[in-house]
Amino acid sequence: MAAAVRADAWAAQGAGERGLRVDARKLRSRIETLSTFGRPAGGTFADGVSRIAYSDADVAGRRFVMTEMKAAGLQPRIDPAGNIFARRPGSDGALPPILFGSHIDSVPSGGNFDGDLGSLSALGALEALDAARVRTRHPLEMVVWAHEEGFAFGRGLACSRIVAGDFSRSDLDEVWNGMRRSDAIRRIGGDPDRIADAQRAKGSHHCYIELHIEQGGTLERAGVPVGVVEGIVAIDKYDAVVTGFANHAGTTPIAERHDALLAAAHLTVAVRDAVTRLPGRQVGTVGHIEVTPNSPNVIPGTARLSIELRDLSPAKLVTMMDDIRARAKEIAANTQTTIEFSRTMQAAPATAAVEVQSAIERAARALDLPSTRLPSGAGHDAQMMALLGPMGMIFVPSVGGVSHSPKELTSWDDCARGADVLLRTVLEMDNVHS
Amino acid sequence: MAAAVRADAWAAQGAGERGLRVDARKLRSRIETLSTFGRPAGGTFADGVSRIAYSDADVAGRRFVMTEMKAAGLQPRIDPAGNIFARRPGSDGALPPILFGSHIDSVPSGGNFDGDLGSLSALGALEALDAARVRTRHPLEMVVWAHEEGFAFGRGLACSRIVAGDFSRSDLDEVWNGMRRSDAIRRIGGDPDRIADAQRAKGSHHCYIELHIEQGGTLERAGVPVGVVEGIVAIDKYDAVVTGFANHAGTTPIAERHDALLAAAHLTVAVRDAVTRLPGRQVGTVGHIEVTPNSPNVIPGTARLSIELRDLSPAKLVTMMDDIRARAKEIAANTQTTIEFSRTMQAAPATAAVEVQSAIERAARALDLPSTRLPSGAGHDAQMMALLGPMGMIFVPSVGGVSHSPKELTSWDDCARGADVLLRTVLEMDNVHS
Repeated sequence: MAAAVRADAWAAQGAGERGLRVDARKLRSRIETLSTFGRPAGGTFADGVSRIAYSDADVAGRRFVMTEMKAAGLQPRIDPAGNIFARRPGSDGALPPILFGSHIDSVPSGGNFDGDLGSLSALGALEALDAARVRTRHPLEMVVWAHEEGFAFGRGLACSRIVAGDFSRSDLDEVWNGMRRSDAIRRIGGDPDRIADAQRAKGSHHCYIELHIEQGGTLERAGVPVGVVEGIVAIDKYDAVVTGFANHAGTTPIAERHDALLAAAHLTVAVRDAVTRLPGRQVGTVGHIEVTPNSPNVIPGTARLSIELRDLSPAKLVTMMDDIRARAKEIAANTQTTIEFSRTMQAAPATAAVEVQSAIERAARALDLPSTRLPSGAGHDAQMMALLGPMGMIFVPSVGGVSHSPKELTSWDDCARGADVLLRTVLEMDNVHS
Repeated sequence: MAAAVRADAWAAQGAGERGLRVDARKLRSRIETLSTFGRPAGGTFADGVSRIAYSDADVAGRRFVMTEMKAAGLQPRIDPAGNIFARRPGSDGALPPILFGSHIDSVPSGGNFDGDLGSLSALGALEALDAARVRTRHPLEMVVWAHEEGFAFGRGLACSRIVAGDFSRSDLDEVWNGMRRSDAIRRIGGDPDRIADAQRAKGSHHCYIELHIEQGGTLERAGVPVGVVEGIVAIDKYDAVVTGFANHAGTTPIAERHDALLAAAHLTVAVRDAVTRLPGRQVGTVGHIEVTPNSPNVIPGTARLSIELRDLSPAKLVTMMDDIRARAKEIAANTQTTIEFSRTMQAAPATAAVEVQSAIERAARALDLPSTRLPSGAGHDAQMMALLGPMGMIFVPSVGGVSHSPKELTSWDDCARGADVLLRTVLEMDNVHS
């Protein structure tokens, strides 16, 4: 791992021209190989993956990535939380590392790019620097976070959350997917007995950078290959419980009904209205509904539905929810039902650091790639790292805006561009003095 | 079973004054005893019953009723379909019987009056005639229909349907509730090998009369103790399948969504609008909804919902459904989804015979009871009997309009009034010449 060229000098010479690039063929080949771990039996790449955290597929996928890391001359280590780290030394031993990476676990029936692209591009970036013998001032550290997907163990982003210190020992006793959390962490090589050691201090890294697929359709629609994430949205989740009265669908006159599903239908429309009434990019979703007795010939007696609101501004979430509550009062009166709300989850927004956003923009410019700023509507490990230091994210286009689906797709060209922007952003940040 | 007084002569003397009444205390006591068969463990009368057709509770309840019938001097017989019949001779052997009764099976978690009242009042009416030594011209025949509740075996009203001839041998192979139909029928004393013998010919009875709780709140609201059923409504049932596209609830901008639940919500509101837009007593219900993936953080990809429309006029059902289809087109366009309908069930209306309606009104008048005409929104065995001859139904008030629930309630006074009206209607019909 000889590094003969100083990164700042090299950058001054114009890296774009000099061709410092992540090996795109290798990146593709690794993404394709990783896709076999958790692939449905008899399926192809297009059938996506189910690489649920802690599953056999996850364990095998992690082993594959660590083997590739070793082949690249890195020494991967698993922290007590199960996250995989590897470090490349910098020229200035006093500087904290630049941390970058993503995750490789997936949702059930997920795609091949969510997490995988960022994780394997981080490895590719380190290899490219080695190949070009570039030496950075800061140590570089790649990470493959464990258990990013799902709201298991309470709040999601399970293992980066431990690193950020948002964790207590009793959480180890939680059970998810039939596994006690301590057993799950042990299964992927973590060490629950030393879990506190996984926590990192604020300021212990220079910055955190994550390349990820957008998962929405904004970049593709705009024809822009690089997204500069402004921040990760705040999320408020509520359960709405509508109580009506179950009765015979034939004998109960319309005026006598207390139809919980009718009220829930009005409420679902009200959620959409509350979201679209305001300018901006906020979203709101009713994704889950449960009706009892849920029988075609019985007027629904109760309905429970989920309301999820997301925006960079927590204040806007409150405004929307106030609007929904006001409409719910009218709906309850009109349908002779009661509607009650309880908040089930609240995630604070995470702002991307201005200096990282600027570094990404410079990196894209140097590669002659147009870029645009946008919020991340999805949660990412980056929001945990934002608790410890400056954070930034690079998005690349998702075809059709599809994600968490086997249909998730990012063109290989866009993957390569994203990896190059990641690499260049690392170099740009290396020159940002902390 | 001596019958010394001719019914017509007796009626001419004014039965009301003479006190020909069903024994109200016995009626109550029998309803209370019957309620113990299928009562939840440790429960009381107020906890209702689950006396599902063919269950142990149903078998035991039927045995109790037959024991009571025998105690009253009747000779119950079970027809090949499992229905219980018993006949009291008339003075004119050439005349067909007046048939009356109801059922005693219940829905899961049902109440103590639906069916039970009509069945046990039929027995009470025969006893009252015996006690008063009244002889009718027509033979009188009481019936306790088997398996009235539920849409098991395809279309509901399972065993009266066999008597009406709406049945084919292959139906015996259907499976419901884990039971093959032939085994189920055998379990309650029927004989599937002779199932064709259960069918009765058109005109084989003078008329069919059924006393039943209203199951709606119309009578109670109007303060009228007796309902004269004009007919049993037609029912059209549809499944609506909404196809959208499941995507990430955080990353998919509102404009890019194909939210199947939002479309289903609009459609649910449209069903209510289509029903209330027209004058009349028609009803329409969305009772069942099923969403995939039904996860709070995923935009629903598909939604399936049931639409059930009821009215005496089948033409009005078509008008409502046309309205719903037209609205669905707009909804699909606005939500970027597709909506498809398929009809899952259609039940023709059954008109109550004018002469039976008049007889019920005369009977109520003779007892100084106000009455009102109304449709039956629920299906009843009476609609099967309407295929074979003149049919009429007597309704008594349901407290709060509640039915198919342990909360189902009819006051003991109203039960007694209904039984008396049934008895008197039988006598009135005995004087209607066929």
